[in-house]
Amino acid sequence: MGTDDKPTAPSRRRFLGGALGVAGAGAAGFGVSRATEDAGRPATAAVSNQVSLYGAHQAGIATPAQDRLAFAAFDVTSTDPMALQTMLGLWAAAAHQMTTGQPVGGNGSANSNPAAPPLDTGEAFDLDPANLTITVGFGPSLFDDRFGLTDLRPAALKDLPAFAGDTLDPNRSGGDIGVQACSNDPQVAFHVIRNFARMARGTAVLRWTQLGFGRTSTTSKSESTPRNLMGFKDGTNNILAENTGDMDDFVWVGESGDQSWMTGGSYLVTRRIRMLIESWDTDFLSDQEAVFGRAKSTGAPLGGHQEFDTVDLSAKNSDGTPLIPKNAHIRLAAPATNGGMKILRRGYSYTDGIDADTGLLDAGLFFICYQADPAKQFVPIQRRLGQNDALNEYIRHTSSAVFAVPPGLSGPGDWFGKKLFTT
Amino acid sequence: MGTDDKPTAPSRRRFLGGALGVAGAGAAGFGVSRATEDAGRPATAAVSNQVSLYGAHQAGIATPAQDRLAFAAFDVTSTDPMALQTMLGLWAAAAHQMTTGQPVGGNGSANSNPAAPPLDTGEAFDLDPANLTITVGFGPSLFDDRFGLTDLRPAALKDLPAFAGDTLDPNRSGGDIGVQACSNDPQVAFHVIRNFARMARGTAVLRWTQLGFGRTSTTSKSESTPRNLMGFKDGTNNILAENTGDMDDFVWVGESGDQSWMTGGSYLVTRRIRMLIESWDTDFLSDQEAVFGRAKSTGAPLGGHQEFDTVDLSAKNSDGTPLIPKNAHIRLAAPATNGGMKILRRGYSYTDGIDADTGLLDAGLFFICYQADPAKQFVPIQRRLGQNDALNEYIRHTSSAVFAVPPGLSGPGDWFGKKLFTT
Repeated sequence: MGTDDKPTAPSRRRFLGGALGVAGAGAAGFGVSRATEDAGRPATAAVSNQVSLYGAHQAGIATPAQDRLAFAAFDVTSTDPMALQTMLGLWAAAAHQMTTGQPVGGNGSANSNPAAPPLDTGEAFDLDPANLTITVGFGPSLFDDRFGLTDLRPAALKDLPAFAGDTLDPNRSGGDIGVQACSNDPQVAFHVIRNFARMARGTAVLRWTQLGFGRTSTTSKSESTPRNLMGFKDGTNNILAENTGDMDDFVWVGESGDQSWMTGGSYLVTRRIRMLIESWDTDFLSDQEAVFGRAKSTGAPLGGHQEFDTVDLSAKNSDGTPLIPKNAHIRLAAPATNGGMKILRRGYSYTDGIDADTGLLDAGLFFICYQADPAKQFVPIQRRLGQNDALNEYIRHTSSAVFAVPPGLSGPGDWFGKKLFTT
Repeated sequence: MGTDDKPTAPSRRRFLGGALGVAGAGAAGFGVSRATEDAGRPATAAVSNQVSLYGAHQAGIATPAQDRLAFAAFDVTSTDPMALQTMLGLWAAAAHQMTTGQPVGGNGSANSNPAAPPLDTGEAFDLDPANLTITVGFGPSLFDDRFGLTDLRPAALKDLPAFAGDTLDPNRSGGDIGVQACSNDPQVAFHVIRNFARMARGTAVLRWTQLGFGRTSTTSKSESTPRNLMGFKDGTNNILAENTGDMDDFVWVGESGDQSWMTGGSYLVTRRIRMLIESWDTDFLSDQEAVFGRAKSTGAPLGGHQEFDTVDLSAKNSDGTPLIPKNAHIRLAAPATNGGMKILRRGYSYTDGIDADTGLLDAGLFFICYQADPAKQFVPIQRRLGQNDALNEYIRHTSSAVFAVPPGLSGPGDWFGKKLFTT
């Protein structure tokens, strides 16, 4: 009983066969379901709790943030460009299946042949996709000399510079490929990472993973801004997906970019920001509020009354000092302090048990942001924060990564980065 | 700005003051809210999404399983029995507040005094309790000679014996006190552990923690049996809380126990069971089903058609071999194989990133069970499983703990284990 008494080749052949079917003309066993094929066009988000994989932009960026995150960075171990493309094709077919509530391999016999490993690992068989989105991007390291992609690296895609106060763990930073799976169900999100890792076998391996949780679907106040693990509302002045002007100006890569395969794409930055919460929790309320520049209870900016009141950076106390301190987080992060630059934040809280060295909780924010050009957006903002933010006393950046997220998939047969490899 | 420019004593005094108020006669600033006091009786579960802390048994055992788990084991560092009791009283007051949707310290000024640290850490300020339950138990080590409790240790509370195949990590096993926080919102569950750890400062420290996730609240099929990370339905033949006969026979400690303070309580066993999922995922479907003794798709026992069909352990194949193999998991775990003994299972799936040694996913089942006597229930069942279970090829037990969970709190002024310390 077990893995030793049978060859694993049949399973691999089935994976590859399916992949080639998808990446090529028709869909084989691993491909999209007949129902979707027959419709002759990509499925749209007409079904409740489903977000279409297909569109001008990848889902999971403008999509309203789901409750749970499973993120993974992969390193490609194969040096065969076709193996890499096959894997990306497999992922695309499986992503369509999972986001439409089907198991990997579809609803057919792929999971009921007794004399083979099921194509799907099974833990999400009965579960609603719960707004599952799967977003895939490529790290700077993918554009080294392994795959002939050197000349296709966008200028905007490069390793982030070192920032003041960085305490990065290289083992959970970077990566050739980044995958963001978001869903309102953690089992559905994890299912994606697990099955992507399985389909990657022989081609890529997991480098690091991160789970996260965010706003809750069970509260009756679900439209209020969620709080981070410091107890403050976080994301009040975020870009709204409905504001297509901001999305075009700050998030999507336009046609003037240096690499046409990235038109309609975006750049993803992740930062694992550990909070020194035991220390934070001993801080006076007035000091906590001065650090953020907001009231803790309401989220209102200092000097304001309600969360969405305008942040008045010029307001003074009676003694002439700034009402919002010079090193307050909202002052340093504000577009007005950063030449009008904005980023689309989409982070999640995380808790990863106890730091073995100190016995303190390892918890904080897995910061995610999307932007049209990190060098003009995240980098200068973070440089300012890293140098001056009052919050720095209570946080440590422990992981960092950047990925070029290509545009959305046009429909069955398209796959993540197809234009990168075929133009 | 920060922790160095002010004394921390005021905060500590406020904690202790509140604790003494609760543990003593009246409720002080840290105690229960006026509304609850005025009602003159414990709050019941009349409010949607609230489960009362008070009752004959602790909540979180018979309570229908919520979606998310945050579990923590604490070690007591103080040797002062009064400090320990004060902490348990603080926890009880805070538990009532958190399970009724209030912040720690109540809805008053305890969180709005600018010149003090807020009593509540704040990340759950706006959140619904989402059926939060908080269940507290005591490990065998608490009954050593530190607190004068040696003679009060129940015979049923002792360290579990070693089992075949154990690969336990001592740093995440055992503990003086165990706390199980369950909610449909992970931020609410984590909030409990974090604030308990904060209130424990100077008296106890976190030893290990574990997050878990389970059935989903977003599926339309939420009443079906959830699947574990091996893709199989798990818990089909569990004790149902509605079956009060089974609960009395197998879960609750009766009046004939050797320690009266445990009457109405139960014994909690936790086992962190890592699944070798990459290996499992290469196994043929027929072999996976033989390991469990159930069909993967439907959950039906082999030879049956539907999930809840009776498990027929005597059924034979045409060649005379057992239809449900001799080493199948459901055969070895079945009450019929274990002298009729049952346990109440309440486990959660977990995913803790990547095993740094192997690059494989560290994921599996955080097994939780409740029973009237582990020596008669969990221990013989696990001994049989550890020796023969076909599943052993694919799992590793990496953490183990046992806790005596005292009966429920009678209302405001009662606290976890009060009878243990005051009888």
